[in-house]
Amino acid sequence: MKKEVTTLKKLAQTLSLSISTVSRALNDHPDISNDTKDKVQKLAAKLNYVPNIFAKGFRKHRSNIIGVIVPNITHYFTTTIVRGIMEEAESKGYRVIISESNNDVEKQKEMFNTMIQFGVDGILASLTKRTRDVEHVLATLNNIPIVLFDKVSNKIPCTQITINDEEAAYNIVEHLINIGKKRIAIIKEGEYSYNSEKRYSGYLKALKDYNLEVDPKMVITVEDISLLEGKRMTNILLSSKIRPDAIFAITDGAAIGVIQTLIKFNVKIPEEIAVVGFSNSVNSTIIQPKLTTVDQPGEKIGRTAVKYLINEINSPEDNLTSKMVEIKSNIVIRESSFKS
Amino acid sequence: MKKEVTTLKKLAQTLSLSISTVSRALNDHPDISNDTKDKVQKLAAKLNYVPNIFAKGFRKHRSNIIGVIVPNITHYFTTTIVRGIMEEAESKGYRVIISESNNDVEKQKEMFNTMIQFGVDGILASLTKRTRDVEHVLATLNNIPIVLFDKVSNKIPCTQITINDEEAAYNIVEHLINIGKKRIAIIKEGEYSYNSEKRYSGYLKALKDYNLEVDPKMVITVEDISLLEGKRMTNILLSSKIRPDAIFAITDGAAIGVIQTLIKFNVKIPEEIAVVGFSNSVNSTIIQPKLTTVDQPGEKIGRTAVKYLINEINSPEDNLTSKMVEIKSNIVIRESSFKS
Repeated sequence: MKKEVTTLKKLAQTLSLSISTVSRALNDHPDISNDTKDKVQKLAAKLNYVPNIFAKGFRKHRSNIIGVIVPNITHYFTTTIVRGIMEEAESKGYRVIISESNNDVEKQKEMFNTMIQFGVDGILASLTKRTRDVEHVLATLNNIPIVLFDKVSNKIPCTQITINDEEAAYNIVEHLINIGKKRIAIIKEGEYSYNSEKRYSGYLKALKDYNLEVDPKMVITVEDISLLEGKRMTNILLSSKIRPDAIFAITDGAAIGVIQTLIKFNVKIPEEIAVVGFSNSVNSTIIQPKLTTVDQPGEKIGRTAVKYLINEINSPEDNLTSKMVEIKSNIVIRESSFKS
Repeated sequence: MKKEVTTLKKLAQTLSLSISTVSRALNDHPDISNDTKDKVQKLAAKLNYVPNIFAKGFRKHRSNIIGVIVPNITHYFTTTIVRGIMEEAESKGYRVIISESNNDVEKQKEMFNTMIQFGVDGILASLTKRTRDVEHVLATLNNIPIVLFDKVSNKIPCTQITINDEEAAYNIVEHLINIGKKRIAIIKEGEYSYNSEKRYSGYLKALKDYNLEVDPKMVITVEDISLLEGKRMTNILLSSKIRPDAIFAITDGAAIGVIQTLIKFNVKIPEEIAVVGFSNSVNSTIIQPKLTTVDQPGEKIGRTAVKYLINEINSPEDNLTSKMVEIKSNIVIRESSFKS
């Protein structure tokens, strides 16, 4: 008969806590009260709970395959990360299989399970926009190492690779202020979008630090940001009584839509309205005027994620401390915002 | 004891033929002599060979997962195909996992095996540039259905989805001739590149039909075509005694490099030199002047490939005839070649 193994789930059920809480309690997460930590750790000791991260060390069969789960595999920034993942994994003798959640939590859940069934050695994941229920990720983490990148979650105790979205947004808005802009509009997504929120908070911070008021009319929120939305929202901004003198679109695609619309209406860029984007896509150097943007080092994010994951595959004991790794991104100043 | 099953491999070994030959003989391929067909079919009957495509019909377990293998998952045109694959598969209740051969035949071989081990129901593949040895694909085809797309091979008896590269290239060169161009240069890849060769042969055919001579100096071959190579080769073309009056780059990326270099040297587009590309990428409408190009319906290729594959998964008897499906692509005329 198979010996029953104490799992996170078992601990959670016994204590009527969520897996998330138990997992964080065992990882000494600051959000969890000392009382709860105590209770969980005592039960874990009593039931002989062995974190699977150790058990994993004894796995005989290695597939040398890394699984990757992303919201949209055809998204430009994602492809640059995937490029970095592919190259780093390749150089370390790992193969990679990729799947897409299509920004659907149910599908994401399924793909985590499928990856486990396939026997991958570890998973790199960027989460869906609206991942509130993270139990399935925690359950997977109980089996194999996971490293999150780009779209991460502070509810999951594992290594997370992000870029400094907030700081980068702050820097690019500060640059607009430095060239004399005062009515800076932002085109962003809603609260469900982790990265959009970070960029928005950088925008707010910069305005505040320079004593500029936030005008709600200058804050445009769209459901799914795109080139087309950039065009549509610029039409709206141009028709308002007091026009912005700069537009910060939180993606290059939207910023290109902004530029195309401004050109259509003969608005001088950057003299009348400056435009800045985010991600330094190929398009940002092809559009005229060339776009000022944030250079997101996608390949570096991918490579870094693979390095941490392989380390955790090989040295499971390191999993006990989850690391928060922030990759620096820089702003690239081009014609769409040159000092006038 | 497991009953020995007669496989393609067994037949091939017994007759000292390649798996490819045996497979094509059983599929009544025109390249195979009647003698060989006779020999193979007799042995198959004698050994009770049942094509696995029937055996498959009895498989109890379906994973509802489709495996995709492509040379480079971050290549723009590939991402548009993948988009179509994802959406069509999703709508039919299938999940998709993707892997990359990185244009390396060994890695491709490994990925075919891995997909089988994972238990996918079928495979969609675009082959590496230099896939000469196709035995591993044929061996996989013996287990599950495969549909090839984009980079295909006439050595593999399965359904293949391609675009009419040759005809499209012919049309775009004919368009250049129609606007009065006579010294049309082409920037292409070497013989190992299936699509490049098709486009080159369309170019040659158009010149021939319009009694224009092929000047070897106007035929530029590069190892791996890219924006950078487009720039480099334009520098070379501009330094030659007699300049071209049009440049056909077989990818949009290279065509954009051509345009950027022509602008740098103040060459008037299209009056002095017209430029045309291939694939209708987003960039082709962002560059100024906007690029005349071939609209490759990537999503449609992806959707069509999934439809055929699912049909073969569900009705294995249909696999016996491999279909050649050509998806139409159209030329999109823009400013880089407007009639002057």
